[in-house]
Amino acid sequence: MGLNVRYRAVLVKLERRNTNILMRYSNFYKDALLNDIIPFWEKNSLDKVDGGYFSCLDNQGKVYDTDKFMWLQARQAWIFSMLYGEVEQNSTWLNIAKSGIDFIVKNGMDGEGNFYFSTTRSGSALVQPYNIFTDCFAAMALCQYGKVSGDEESLILAEKTYQNIRKRSSSPKGIYEKNTGGRQLKSFALPMILANLVLELEGILKKEEVNEVLENIVHDIMYGFLDKETGLIFESVRPDGTHDDSFEGRLINPGHGLEAMWFVIDIAARNNDKKLIEKAVNTIIHILEYAWDNKYGGIYYFMDVRGKPPLQLEHDQKLWWVHLEALIALAKAYECTKDKSVFDWFQKVHNYAWTHFSDQENGEWFGYLNREGKIHLNLKGGKWKGCFHTPRAMYQCWKSFEGVGL
Amino acid sequence: MGLNVRYRAVLVKLERRNTNILMRYSNFYKDALLNDIIPFWEKNSLDKVDGGYFSCLDNQGKVYDTDKFMWLQARQAWIFSMLYGEVEQNSTWLNIAKSGIDFIVKNGMDGEGNFYFSTTRSGSALVQPYNIFTDCFAAMALCQYGKVSGDEESLILAEKTYQNIRKRSSSPKGIYEKNTGGRQLKSFALPMILANLVLELEGILKKEEVNEVLENIVHDIMYGFLDKETGLIFESVRPDGTHDDSFEGRLINPGHGLEAMWFVIDIAARNNDKKLIEKAVNTIIHILEYAWDNKYGGIYYFMDVRGKPPLQLEHDQKLWWVHLEALIALAKAYECTKDKSVFDWFQKVHNYAWTHFSDQENGEWFGYLNREGKIHLNLKGGKWKGCFHTPRAMYQCWKSFEGVGL
Repeated sequence: MGLNVRYRAVLVKLERRNTNILMRYSNFYKDALLNDIIPFWEKNSLDKVDGGYFSCLDNQGKVYDTDKFMWLQARQAWIFSMLYGEVEQNSTWLNIAKSGIDFIVKNGMDGEGNFYFSTTRSGSALVQPYNIFTDCFAAMALCQYGKVSGDEESLILAEKTYQNIRKRSSSPKGIYEKNTGGRQLKSFALPMILANLVLELEGILKKEEVNEVLENIVHDIMYGFLDKETGLIFESVRPDGTHDDSFEGRLINPGHGLEAMWFVIDIAARNNDKKLIEKAVNTIIHILEYAWDNKYGGIYYFMDVRGKPPLQLEHDQKLWWVHLEALIALAKAYECTKDKSVFDWFQKVHNYAWTHFSDQENGEWFGYLNREGKIHLNLKGGKWKGCFHTPRAMYQCWKSFEGVGL
Repeated sequence: MGLNVRYRAVLVKLERRNTNILMRYSNFYKDALLNDIIPFWEKNSLDKVDGGYFSCLDNQGKVYDTDKFMWLQARQAWIFSMLYGEVEQNSTWLNIAKSGIDFIVKNGMDGEGNFYFSTTRSGSALVQPYNIFTDCFAAMALCQYGKVSGDEESLILAEKTYQNIRKRSSSPKGIYEKNTGGRQLKSFALPMILANLVLELEGILKKEEVNEVLENIVHDIMYGFLDKETGLIFESVRPDGTHDDSFEGRLINPGHGLEAMWFVIDIAARNNDKKLIEKAVNTIIHILEYAWDNKYGGIYYFMDVRGKPPLQLEHDQKLWWVHLEALIALAKAYECTKDKSVFDWFQKVHNYAWTHFSDQENGEWFGYLNREGKIHLNLKGGKWKGCFHTPRAMYQCWKSFEGVGL
């Protein structure tokens, strides 16, 4: 399997233009975003009857299930709002964003402003608000949309949702929490998403709140979840940061760690904190060295830090988002350091990803490969894959390489 | 990969004895139960400090995690009680059973008699009683142990647990139910486990209750979950038995269907209901024809009846229990029908299973193979695999072939 024909042609064209290699990568990702990924979702995902988006799209982009997962509605609304604000004031994009925002505002919340996990196509609630992650993506989407459209109500609801998240964040699963508390572990998912959320909501939150939350989170991540000895990010640690020899306590989710590290680079860049950037970049490299499959290529989905059998039956599969977050992390790490070994890693992940995930025939990326890199689920979207990681990574890589290549 | 050396030797020995092929299979499974499977658990799983059993055993039988999952504690206690009652009054087996019963009675329940999902090694509760399935296995274990040991208290607690299950069975997940009820689907898991439970508890329940529950359940399974058109058992159907075009509504779990069919054969055999036996046998064959992987062999774990991408990332893996339940179903189907095509299927599944799952070096079966049949998780037990399906299937196949072969 080689780099697909479409992208080979793009590369040849870019090489002929004699631009430097960094600008070639930048243009490659810009082209992918605007001529492959975004057109795929514009063409296939819009529900012109009930509003919002279909996320269950088969390999050709055909809808195979019409359920609507609120967090994917919010993520797609966020993407199209962001494109409108950052790339081009294209009214089609704003209308697409509005369609998702309208859907989640109308159908997405219970009486207390908590966001359902899923609804039917027309908006009847199916699955209860069993954690706060959907709410986080809803708040981000509402804020981004409000910012670019000028819609005040979206900003007010974004702020209200943020306050609700903060209130619920001491027990993110609420009544649905199955743990007795007999084994106290804190989960990496929470600081991770809060970091992203607070950065996104910066414009509508008090400056002191933003700074305080970010400082705490970065400390929590870099001195709590990041393990000194292995240089890896753990999914769960004890409140005092020590490790627990249990399935949860041994779990490493490399994609999660990589994603977090580029959030940390973004936060560090705001404060021009070079030491923090260096620490984040080292962590990115550690994670990749640890989680790269030297036999078949690609990054593992889950690992047990002691090499014990993990609970996750999908542990050795190669997932689209893991590789996309790795690409963003490496592009940002290179932007900050200009380090050759970081660039080498970027090229390695880039080559694996574009030869295995990208679909030249019907566009976008496949989501799930088996360990050997063969297509495992023949889909472009589902309950967990929507219009988010692919376009976000295309945008971030485009901008990072533009930042160093120009 | 061939049938492992140990079992090849057993077969050669059995052939030399000039027994008929049915008795050879019977003796093969008896030998496997008594000289491979049971010794593995006797040697490796007993917690001599805190009581109960370790289920997280690596390929060599070494403990890699000490958490205790109540349903696996109950299942192992059931197996050793059953062996004591049905195979041999071996006091070691009764003591092993007692150790698990003592552990779950002492540590397994909350204040209302609901069974926790898991505890630490020493018995501190970790995961709440979030459904009634653990309770079902606890009731079975308590009843079986009480019956063979004469321990009255176990029988009383078994009956009390049964009443609690019946009370909770209209909402098996209780407060942990995430569905809003906006899409009403009934789950196959419930009638399936109740059928097993009521048969197990027959001795301590009123005769009318047993008959009424069994009649309702068999009707529910054979006229509700069994689809006339495809001949397959669905995991979820609407209350009126029609199908819902959603992830849940399209889901087929072949192992689950096969296991249910031998429960139905057992129930039908009690009433000498030949029509029902015929229907169950036909369903077994339908499921196998549908779910057999013609490329790599073995039975798929999950399938979408419309061929859409399933949610389960492990959908194409080959699991130990699915193949063991298929073997029991086929052995019982053959016992009832003497049909050659049923026997051919038995031999096909037998050959696949013994060449792929069985471990000649360290005993017992691997639990999880990838689609191609290679070992996917290098373990003999974990959170979901314990001392249950393997010994139960060895026992059932031994007895079924003895029934027809003698």
